[in-house]
Amino acid sequence: MSFDLAAYLAERRRAVDAALDRHLPPPDAPPAIIHEAMRYSVFAGGKRLRPILVIAGAEAVGGSVERVLPTACALELIHTYSLIHDDLPAMDDDDYRRGRPTNHKVFGEAIAILAGDALLSLAFGLLAESASLDVVKEVAAAAGTFGMIGGQVVDIQSEGKPVEARTLEYIHTHKTAALIRCALRSGAMIAGAAPETLAAVGEAGSRLGLAFQIVDDILDVEGSLEELGKTAGSDQRKKKATYPEYFGREASRLKAKALIEDAKAALAPLGPRAGPIRALADFILERRS
Amino acid sequence: MSFDLAAYLAERRRAVDAALDRHLPPPDAPPAIIHEAMRYSVFAGGKRLRPILVIAGAEAVGGSVERVLPTACALELIHTYSLIHDDLPAMDDDDYRRGRPTNHKVFGEAIAILAGDALLSLAFGLLAESASLDVVKEVAAAAGTFGMIGGQVVDIQSEGKPVEARTLEYIHTHKTAALIRCALRSGAMIAGAAPETLAAVGEAGSRLGLAFQIVDDILDVEGSLEELGKTAGSDQRKKKATYPEYFGREASRLKAKALIEDAKAALAPLGPRAGPIRALADFILERRS
Repeated sequence: MSFDLAAYLAERRRAVDAALDRHLPPPDAPPAIIHEAMRYSVFAGGKRLRPILVIAGAEAVGGSVERVLPTACALELIHTYSLIHDDLPAMDDDDYRRGRPTNHKVFGEAIAILAGDALLSLAFGLLAESASLDVVKEVAAAAGTFGMIGGQVVDIQSEGKPVEARTLEYIHTHKTAALIRCALRSGAMIAGAAPETLAAVGEAGSRLGLAFQIVDDILDVEGSLEELGKTAGSDQRKKKATYPEYFGREASRLKAKALIEDAKAALAPLGPRAGPIRALADFILERRS
Repeated sequence: MSFDLAAYLAERRRAVDAALDRHLPPPDAPPAIIHEAMRYSVFAGGKRLRPILVIAGAEAVGGSVERVLPTACALELIHTYSLIHDDLPAMDDDDYRRGRPTNHKVFGEAIAILAGDALLSLAFGLLAESASLDVVKEVAAAAGTFGMIGGQVVDIQSEGKPVEARTLEYIHTHKTAALIRCALRSGAMIAGAAPETLAAVGEAGSRLGLAFQIVDDILDVEGSLEELGKTAGSDQRKKKATYPEYFGREASRLKAKALIEDAKAALAPLGPRAGPIRALADFILERRS
């Protein structure tokens, strides 16, 4: 029996969306504007890849979906905060995200900055309610200057400059892969993964994360505004360092493919329970938006 | 024997500064710019009031200084992140803080935004290493939209508008008092305070926090650039709602004094061990900068 990825994703997305709605303050709770702004970006039609990876990480070691939902939400809140801050005029200065005006275009820069700050704070509150101190530590590290923020710093500093391959890899592994790896590991940790299983899941997560960003780069070159919900070719306009620019589109696709295979190889010891992660790996490679 | 507040503060400040230096990434750790930016604002000569309140909260229930130092640092990192973001052009647009150019004037807006984000993430990492999930939850709530961020949102929304007394109190209790209360409570929680002791400490913290902000408002009217390290009268220029503007300077001073007395009354059941908190309460009222 083949794994029905579309059904799996749809069901998990529904569960994640319902949990996000429960865990975010109501839109009319005062001060309403900040809660509206947080919800505007959280419910902007994201793929929910990170929370679904948390769930798949738990399932891979026999954990329950229900138990990891708050942690899954926390990872999505951190991802969303990073997008809101990245889009600010002082950073990437983007007007559109997922086909809609960016947070600061709707709520103004001050509220957008604070909405990002609030999502990050709420994420740690959720982790404290539902996970362990180890998971809080793991997420703080992945989100910090040796993880996601570090990648964003080097990305900004590299704009418009020629970069070496290792700088490009640094940006991608830190800006994107660190949180994706952390999502998979967090789910497995909460489900009580043994150390060697956790290491395997982490290996797979690093490779999935880098593959995800390489595919993102390729889609940015190939995609249209309609498909991506943001302006295609925006990396090039902003003179961002990308894999296709550096290695060419074909070599980049082969690299992504190899990373997905490596991720699957790392998961081999987990057996059939890692089926959802394997299916997500294929999804990451084959997605069109 | 009277309590030597100056010696107490100097000793605690030294311990906090040394711990902050240990817990912040080295300034040359890549990407260096973000670690320099974080350190620039953390070591800008703050009073370390919040970390010292964490310590005093622990001491009030017989806890050790050493044990709560990482949590003390975390509260200072959160305070510092909030100052960096508050000073941004999109927010209060301040060029000076503690007598030095603000973070974004030195490092640029993008790095300043990321330095704030990084300090918040690091704070939760520190809490996870040293405190309990209850403390993480407490801090996340105090820093979030029903605490500090909520106060900042209403503060920004109220600029240049006539505000009611209850809005003014909302801003002050949320923007400032929530984190000060949380500092005292966190120290007491880690030291194993009984529920009724924790409630008393929280009561005292709320009052100390509000008194602190009222005194801050008064100093802003009275102070000079030299004493405060920021432009005096800046609240008025920005049409910020303040206590002296609303109630007059004399009534505001009496209100602060009454709050300090209330705080001390709340601490009565704790006996002599709450001596440092009482001394800090006097310091909050009598400080000149």
